[in-house]
Amino acid sequence: MAMTLDDFKKTFPVRIELPVQWGEMDAFNHVNNVTYFRYFESARIAYFEACGLFGRKEASGIGPILASTECKYRRPVNYPDKLWVGARIGELQRFGFVQHYGIFSQNQQALTTEGHGRIVLLDYNTNAKVEPDAELLARIAELEGQ
Amino acid sequence: MAMTLDDFKKTFPVRIELPVQWGEMDAFNHVNNVTYFRYFESARIAYFEACGLFGRKEASGIGPILASTECKYRRPVNYPDKLWVGARIGELQRFGFVQHYGIFSQNQQALTTEGHGRIVLLDYNTNAKVEPDAELLARIAELEGQ
Amino acid sequence: MAMTLDDFKKTFPVRIELPVQWGEMDAFNHVNNVTYFRYFESARIAYFEACGLFGRKEASGIGPILASTECKYRRPVNYPDKLWVGARIGELQRFGFVQHYGIFSQNQQALTTEGHGRIVLLDYNTNAKVEPDAELLARIAELEGQ
Amino acid sequence: MAMTLDDFKKTFPVRIELPVQWGEMDAFNHVNNVTYFRYFESARIAYFEACGLFGRKEASGIGPILASTECKYRRPVNYPDKLWVGARIGELQRFGFVQHYGIFSQNQQALTTEGHGRIVLLDYNTNAKVEPDAELLARIAELEGQ
Repeated sequence: MAMTLDDFKKTFPVRIELPVQWGEMDAFNHVNNVTYFRYFESARIAYFEACGLFGRKEASGIGPILASTECKYRRPVNYPDKLWVGARIGELQRFGFVQHYGIFSQNQQALTTEGHGRIVLLDYNTNAKVEPDAELLARIAELEGQ
Repeated sequence: MAMTLDDFKKTFPVRIELPVQWGEMDAFNHVNNVTYFRYFESARIAYFEACGLFGRKEASGIGPILASTECKYRRPVNYPDKLWVGARIGELQRFGFVQHYGIFSQNQQALTTEGHGRIVLLDYNTNAKVEPDAELLARIAELEGQ
Repeated sequence: MAMTLDDFKKTFPVRIELPVQWGEMDAFNHVNNVTYFRYFESARIAYFEACGLFGRKEASGIGPILASTECKYRRPVNYPDKLWVGARIGELQRFGFVQHYGIFSQNQQALTTEGHGRIVLLDYNTNAKVEPDAELLARIAELEGQ
Repeated sequence: MAMTLDDFKKTFPVRIELPVQWGEMDAFNHVNNVTYFRYFESARIAYFEACGLFGRKEASGIGPILASTECKYRRPVNYPDKLWVGARIGELQRFGFVQHYGIFSQNQQALTTEGHGRIVLLDYNTNAKVEPDAELLARIAELEGQ
């Protein structure tokens, strides 16, 4: 059963809207595979803003780094279109978390792309991994509706 | 006297809205100089759609090509921000036209960036430059409020 | 024990060399996470050329599509540097294969980045997945030194 | 009369070599117009390194900023190809200089692209424009063979 936009919005507590730009297509006339990682990154940053992680590195020396990321291409996307790019946290880990990403196309009214990123929290003063503090965990729980 | 958003909208008949993406900034923490040409391209394509030039190459073999383009960086732009990117036609030429571009920042409430592109119409069947036809000129005149 | 450039070259039968471009760094002064997928793509295409898959879509209607891709960020990369980007096939699947990618930094003399991509062969005439033919398998076996 | 690679090398004292990456092409199967500004930027930075301007901002607070840049598209470029991207200084100005850029294609054995950038020197401590000092002028004169 296909995912609706309503389902999508319920699944991803943090979402951004992006117009597909013509120049994001490659010689195959589809949005290039690399571009989706820019979209994911923008949703990831939006989530960091929502949970208080964005800019924290400057304030406290503790910041998120991306350890790995993956994208599954379900359906090609073309210009013109409008995309919703969503992020949610799928799994809390000792020193960070796994974020899941999804992209929903206005034209196709379907989920076109899925992915994830593993984020680690680092203390840039000591270069050591650090555990999420209570405030961060509370903000994430609130966002995820737990 | 500074340009307001209203002035901007009056100046540029075709406009798109783009969120600045974090990853569009470079190591100087500003939107990278290259990125503005992607923004201009997106406004150019939007203008082509508005005046009937987009997709015409596929239909008739006649299409626009970009002969040259320039950008003047008035003020740096940072994430997060929302931009209006506008296009207007500044000068009709025998085989095309000069488009002007402008970028207005929501945060700064100012014009941050200006540029232009020279567009030439090409018949891809014969590789010869062609003059704009009456329909195209009429659409442009309508858009530009002449 | 760290991988040497010699090890790297033995591991990846197809390799390209790319200079890091300054503008590929982001506001954290490292090569941006998205950029590595462009590097992987370039190595993937180089492998397609080496095994006869590049341009086959135009000739026969059968071409590779990228079903998914992943990147693991082991060490940050900075400008200036020169990178070797390698591709090898890790697993043959019924309708395609999994490619592995690696990036070796001249400055760090170390493997900085790993990743993979799952490639599916598609008959664009029928939109059906197709199995690799004997010629393709032979070319891959030759490249991989099997 | 067409420019040869030798002419090109004599014209541009600072040059970098870049392979065209497949993903730099757009839906028209040519290198996208935006990409050339990344190439120009890389040649500009190489020139800054050669004349001692790169990294000076960190050391002295004085650094170059790009005030404007332009590109003229003479011939389309396609994958695969290798490009030489050259930079030279065309005009010294009170607070900076105009750089000229050129791109030479190995496949076409021709100059495909030209452009320029206007660079201004800024004292980031006071935000004031500054004049090039004697050391910088001497390095530029040496590079330009004057």
